[in-house]
Amino acid sequence: MSPSASRVTIHMAASLDGFIARKDGSVDWLETPDSYAEGETMSPEYVVAFLKTIDCYVMGSRTYETALGFEAKGHGWAYGDTPTYVLTSRQLPKTRPSVAFHSGDLATLINDQLRPRYRNIWVAGGGAVAGACLKLGLADELRYSILPVVIGEGIPFFAGLDKIVPLHLVEVRAYKSGMVALRHEVRREAAATA
Amino acid sequence: MSPSASRVTIHMAASLDGFIARKDGSVDWLETPDSYAEGETMSPEYVVAFLKTIDCYVMGSRTYETALGFEAKGHGWAYGDTPTYVLTSRQLPKTRPSVAFHSGDLATLINDQLRPRYRNIWVAGGGAVAGACLKLGLADELRYSILPVVIGEGIPFFAGLDKIVPLHLVEVRAYKSGMVALRHEVRREAAATA
Repeated sequence: MSPSASRVTIHMAASLDGFIARKDGSVDWLETPDSYAEGETMSPEYVVAFLKTIDCYVMGSRTYETALGFEAKGHGWAYGDTPTYVLTSRQLPKTRPSVAFHSGDLATLINDQLRPRYRNIWVAGGGAVAGACLKLGLADELRYSILPVVIGEGIPFFAGLDKIVPLHLVEVRAYKSGMVALRHEVRREAAATA
Repeated sequence: MSPSASRVTIHMAASLDGFIARKDGSVDWLETPDSYAEGETMSPEYVVAFLKTIDCYVMGSRTYETALGFEAKGHGWAYGDTPTYVLTSRQLPKTRPSVAFHSGDLATLINDQLRPRYRNIWVAGGGAVAGACLKLGLADELRYSILPVVIGEGIPFFAGLDKIVPLHLVEVRAYKSGMVALRHEVRREAAATA
């Protein structure tokens, strides 16, 4: 497959004030009690079909550990059998064949290893990985799901990004849960000259 | 007027990553080149009529100075003749009769002075004032306008807030400029027990 046919999407859920987790990494506040009457519903069938369109995941080590923690609590493994690349220089448990660890350069991983092989590459966080993807111009698209809560302080959606990245709004969807899902394309021509 | 008939709204425009200004206070990035075909347009008549529904503004001193800076550059004064309360302990220029300075307690100003007198009280920023309003349970509503840009670092939308504030999504609007305007009510019952 041609690398240009691939698409790198950063997806994260965040509080209205832009945090993906509390400072201690906890995400208990993701369960909000809101209900938005005009919102759409997401059927389990839709979610399953949507997740099948994702060809691989990329995530940081803390996001991986959070996912393992969910699994340990009986909530299951969120990424199915889809190949999952975990960025880390630490020794972490490899719990399934679909998980691979990568300790090298993020740009090399995405541009040289993943883009030629996968069409729909999904960066699942956390903030440091998302920030690095944007900073290095590796992402094509941002999907930002905003929950109806303000948490005041925590781990920011984009960490370590020190430049302005212009976006193009592509889609806005609001759900019955009170979550608002925004989709933006990264304006590459502008990002390259920033 | 009964204080309970009044409504305190926090309104700010922010980048997708939740900053209202760069660290030096500049907001040049607010002018984004985006265009969203499915978005609504805001006619000048609508904007004028909408602004007339606002009965008074509350803002921090840096927001006031930013507004004075815009005026000095020939962009006009954004708040018309509407009474404007500036929170400051500094000596700042009083440029018009509608501007008043307040150096005391924010809760006293809003609950004792403004709520009995004004119906639609609009907190225009910045982050410290917005954060204090939420922290002290003074706000009824948040209006958060998200611009299609990520700026990486800057002054956060809510500064100094150290607790979780649950919200209720009320409205989502997307505009041709690529701006997405979210409106949330503050869930007071939950906020009181947080």
